[in-house]
Amino acid sequence: MSGDGHFDRVALIGLGLIGSSLGHAMKRGGLAGEIVGSARSDATRARALEIGFIDRAETNAADAVKDADLVVLCTPVGAVGAVAQEIAPHLAKGAILTDVGSVKASLIDDVGPHVPDGVHFIPGHPIAGTEQSGPDAGFPELFDGRWCILTPLEGSDPDMVAKLSSFWEACGTKIDVMDAKHHDLVLAITSHLPHLIAYNIVGTADDLETVTKSEVIKYSAGGFRDFTRLAASDPTMWRDVCLNNREAILEMFGRFSEDLAAMQRAIRWGDGDALFDLFTRTRDIRRSIVDAGQEVAAPNFGRDPAKED
Amino acid sequence: MSGDGHFDRVALIGLGLIGSSLGHAMKRGGLAGEIVGSARSDATRARALEIGFIDRAETNAADAVKDADLVVLCTPVGAVGAVAQEIAPHLAKGAILTDVGSVKASLIDDVGPHVPDGVHFIPGHPIAGTEQSGPDAGFPELFDGRWCILTPLEGSDPDMVAKLSSFWEACGTKIDVMDAKHHDLVLAITSHLPHLIAYNIVGTADDLETVTKSEVIKYSAGGFRDFTRLAASDPTMWRDVCLNNREAILEMFGRFSEDLAAMQRAIRWGDGDALFDLFTRTRDIRRSIVDAGQEVAAPNFGRDPAKED
Repeated sequence: MSGDGHFDRVALIGLGLIGSSLGHAMKRGGLAGEIVGSARSDATRARALEIGFIDRAETNAADAVKDADLVVLCTPVGAVGAVAQEIAPHLAKGAILTDVGSVKASLIDDVGPHVPDGVHFIPGHPIAGTEQSGPDAGFPELFDGRWCILTPLEGSDPDMVAKLSSFWEACGTKIDVMDAKHHDLVLAITSHLPHLIAYNIVGTADDLETVTKSEVIKYSAGGFRDFTRLAASDPTMWRDVCLNNREAILEMFGRFSEDLAAMQRAIRWGDGDALFDLFTRTRDIRRSIVDAGQEVAAPNFGRDPAKED
Repeated sequence: MSGDGHFDRVALIGLGLIGSSLGHAMKRGGLAGEIVGSARSDATRARALEIGFIDRAETNAADAVKDADLVVLCTPVGAVGAVAQEIAPHLAKGAILTDVGSVKASLIDDVGPHVPDGVHFIPGHPIAGTEQSGPDAGFPELFDGRWCILTPLEGSDPDMVAKLSSFWEACGTKIDVMDAKHHDLVLAITSHLPHLIAYNIVGTADDLETVTKSEVIKYSAGGFRDFTRLAASDPTMWRDVCLNNREAILEMFGRFSEDLAAMQRAIRWGDGDALFDLFTRTRDIRRSIVDAGQEVAAPNFGRDPAKED
């Protein structure tokens, strides 16, 4: 085993946006001797082979993990427990078992008990994605410049954590390590709440009787369209996130709702100074995100014609 | 006067994002014999002349509107009343007076009483923008393919409405006409609420003590970064929108909050079916917006490296 992020055989369980992007990234970097992919749908497996981000497809996850020295669970978070149970007897001694799930504490509860002795279970989460899903959604650059958070268990072998870190770095990410509970809190505000708020406002707009859907669509460039991107994300994935990170999400919901009530009150009472202060304070954070390389600097995300300089 | 959208002299009162973009669009289309710009800041006027989207700069709005056959108020909505009072005695007989404000009913109340007989006051609102502001933010393509809503008063001269429509069409927009009250309701959901929700969530994230600002920035690609764009918009403009469209905004806030409470409840009680249904329903609206030409189809707004096909 080397520290260069290379594995002899990698098994991808689930071939959606993240699984397919990981396949592309491994191909780009020459990170795997063989990539074996497993998905329940015949069409998905056939398409994955056709695109070529896996070398071999298996119907059953249990067959895919045989002799793999890296197994990556890329299914929605709600399915990982059943998958872990299915593959457990077939995992190779010394293999690393990881995942890409957006929730970590419940996943450790679901997967951990099935992991046999001698298999290194190191949960992970690359903070990258698009609103698209399925085997056609992946591309090799998805992880470039993004962060991957690893949440090793107590007693995880540091050499194995280092090996998995090298693998993700070779896929383009930077690495952070934290405990699962903190990960779930951080993601609740940076990812889960934004998606849920976006789903919610799009749902609200869809339900109005005083404004037609056609009007919402035509005038969406006033701001609304931004939210429709997150609200077009995979429903199964996000249902599972809600069901598996309930506590942290509800805590962040509580904070958000308190702040929203304060804003409503400021609007109702015409407190322009309070509104101006908030609207000024929030400007800085975007600049910081651009400076940190996590966002483009171009106006409108660069989607409109470039301004002339 | 012709129906081709050309004016002999256009006065732009306010030279920020919309004023400067309008100057660029007029230059691009050859839509004005002379463009006169007015702004309170010396630096803004100098920069506007330097960039060249105006031909002449005036310190006082009253001087800028002299002999103009089109006057466009491009200041924040809170300032239009005072500007109208200042320019009223200097407006040319037969001129069209319009604006670009995001709120229409209160603007009509503020401006209307000052408009002298013989001047055609036709409020307008191009649904286009970026998160940037100031005279450097403008570019000629800002309005291309977007909608401009006109809200003529009862008794407005149809020929003058047609002339202003031609002008905006020559600037790149499509035209809709509706009454001011309906405009304010439509914009409350398509623009005002999205901005306020974005400001709110960015404020919430900024205030947390359990998650650091550095973590919010690093992991913002999980979704949060999308909201920071709207939350980086001009604070004065958005304060004025809140103060001038209170009723419609609070109504939309009420709907949003009800739906949010229902979502929170579904999460708390683990109602996966309700969540899945909402998350599925909201996918369609983005597709409709893309089909309507109001949004790019590329994943992540096209800001990340293009996927390979």
